[in-house]
Amino acid sequence: MAETTTATTPEAPDVPEGGVPEREVVDPAAWTCPAPLRDHPTVVLGHGGGGALSAELMEHLFVPAYGNPTLAGLGDSATVTLGGARLAFSTDSYVVRPLFFPGGCIGDLAVNGTVNDLAMSGAQPAYLSCGFILEEGVELSVVGQVAQAVGAAAEAAGVTVATGDTKVVEAGHGDGVYLNTSGIGLIPDGVDIRPQRAVPGDVVIVSGPIGLHGIAVLSLREGLEFGAGELASDTAPLNGLVAAMLGVTRDVHVLRDPTRGGVAATLNEIASASGTGVVLTERDLPVPEAVANACGFLGLDPLYVANEGRLVAVVPRAEADAVLAALRAHPHGRGAAVIGECVAEHPGTVVARTAFGGTRVVDLPLGEQLPRIC
Amino acid sequence: MAETTTATTPEAPDVPEGGVPEREVVDPAAWTCPAPLRDHPTVVLGHGGGGALSAELMEHLFVPAYGNPTLAGLGDSATVTLGGARLAFSTDSYVVRPLFFPGGCIGDLAVNGTVNDLAMSGAQPAYLSCGFILEEGVELSVVGQVAQAVGAAAEAAGVTVATGDTKVVEAGHGDGVYLNTSGIGLIPDGVDIRPQRAVPGDVVIVSGPIGLHGIAVLSLREGLEFGAGELASDTAPLNGLVAAMLGVTRDVHVLRDPTRGGVAATLNEIASASGTGVVLTERDLPVPEAVANACGFLGLDPLYVANEGRLVAVVPRAEADAVLAALRAHPHGRGAAVIGECVAEHPGTVVARTAFGGTRVVDLPLGEQLPRIC
Repeated sequence: MAETTTATTPEAPDVPEGGVPEREVVDPAAWTCPAPLRDHPTVVLGHGGGGALSAELMEHLFVPAYGNPTLAGLGDSATVTLGGARLAFSTDSYVVRPLFFPGGCIGDLAVNGTVNDLAMSGAQPAYLSCGFILEEGVELSVVGQVAQAVGAAAEAAGVTVATGDTKVVEAGHGDGVYLNTSGIGLIPDGVDIRPQRAVPGDVVIVSGPIGLHGIAVLSLREGLEFGAGELASDTAPLNGLVAAMLGVTRDVHVLRDPTRGGVAATLNEIASASGTGVVLTERDLPVPEAVANACGFLGLDPLYVANEGRLVAVVPRAEADAVLAALRAHPHGRGAAVIGECVAEHPGTVVARTAFGGTRVVDLPLGEQLPRIC
Repeated sequence: MAETTTATTPEAPDVPEGGVPEREVVDPAAWTCPAPLRDHPTVVLGHGGGGALSAELMEHLFVPAYGNPTLAGLGDSATVTLGGARLAFSTDSYVVRPLFFPGGCIGDLAVNGTVNDLAMSGAQPAYLSCGFILEEGVELSVVGQVAQAVGAAAEAAGVTVATGDTKVVEAGHGDGVYLNTSGIGLIPDGVDIRPQRAVPGDVVIVSGPIGLHGIAVLSLREGLEFGAGELASDTAPLNGLVAAMLGVTRDVHVLRDPTRGGVAATLNEIASASGTGVVLTERDLPVPEAVANACGFLGLDPLYVANEGRLVAVVPRAEADAVLAALRAHPHGRGAAVIGECVAEHPGTVVARTAFGGTRVVDLPLGEQLPRIC
């Protein structure tokens, strides 16, 4: 498909002898609400970035095609009922490059990612599927290392890999290993955690330092060094952390793991789904020095960098101290901090109070600053 | 990874100045039972073929890594219990080339494939996930057509696409669209359908003509023509057919859809899991003339060619007539036929009575005759 990469600079259409420009048989302009997609007649990397382009693809292409408005819900997983059981169901594909990075590899990333998507609905993750797309010629020892990482991460998270599948594509048509994990978990009675539940007055908490995964992968890929010792992915299963929070209160309004698009994308989705405003205090953001240095050097904003072992919690102010204490008592939540609040002003918009006393709007990113970090 | 394509003819290892050959840090020879894998230090296309190489990868690499012996069960889906509900859970990735072929495309193939894997345990498929790995530069109209096919196939099968994910890889690292579908369904009370349940005396039924999907895709890909009008993929959802069978008897022993590796691989897996012998009668196999012509021309055996809308049923002899009638009364089962029986002789082995009165052993294929047909 390399021949069709003229995503943003399409050539003028051929004009046949009759003088009428040739047209595609399938015309994106005929889709439900074509405007945003018409600007991008071909897929660009940003469509996989978890930002505005991803959201447009979902809204204007997938939801109309599937005829399922509930798919448009912005949760990390779907809530479905089957045989009387209320289940969370989620899927994610992983195309991270390189396959191995400080702090993890595509295998534990894929397990933790789906475990976390399930946990963000309050579910207890139970069973995972694992589908490999292997590239012909990749060493079996590499596949073995990835599979071992899948197994170890599943054991650490307390979930079972119940079913799997392996396909192989010809050399040159992949990147060694692509991985898909899907998962199901049971949502406890009385738990109702979803982005729509944020209300003015709620407190916004993040469970630890942000930006580590994205910067760790980028640094390795581009051969950059920013305080090497500190820079390892934060990939971790968050179901234990969620259980700890639910142990002190069932009244958690929203949980999300800020992966692609970072904390900025997550907060924008919460603001948009709930119709509340969100105000961040920049100086309260737990940004590790190595991440801050790397972001400064590269012109990135840590709010937009992916995390793989952090969660954002929106809780009633009355529960905030108890939730914060529960988070900090858990190994994956030691660095938890209050970073902002939900407000009635500027509904749907995220604003940051800067270190200099001003404010700035924190937009939904268009695509992603760092492609292929998960 | 194009540089590591020396799958079957690896170059001699570099010998550093010290004179000792370099060795991998991770040594496949150290795995649980390394013998079969040591012959294939890198991934070959056959590892994705659903035959002996796939089985070795499962047995010697994935099962030890995941530490989950139940994964080794040969069913198309896992049976798990969650919140008191008995569920089937399955996953499959799809890398078919080309994306569109007579009778379908990667979108409906992916929906029907997972619907069928769930249905083969007797489950009523309910919810699917759909994960896209898109290649930068692929036209959005192509993605839209695939998504429309996903939606239409889900509607036809009576399932809901509940959750999804989209990743994008750089141009040259994919084939336009790779797709993963996972699914969950509810297994009715009193239904116990699995390969281990075949017993001598059971009758083997196939629900219709075999070999159409594999030959249709191959013909298109290679530009061959064999009675073009007839050659379209059989891709179809089989949950309705399974419901029709269960409507006449709950005592169905085994159901499998003979996809990769064809009817031969499916029957070998049933024979191996149950420890019965299987005897086929070649002249009873419903092989369409166009498939027979193509197989003759290409030196293929229709028993090994993939199907995407057929099932193999193993049922007690007393139920065979009723099951056959129920199949034939359904649009997807009109061509159903008895093709063989389970016997006490040659346990674990599949034998075919040839048209000339002899017999031949029908082996588990090593890899796949036709790579990337699903």
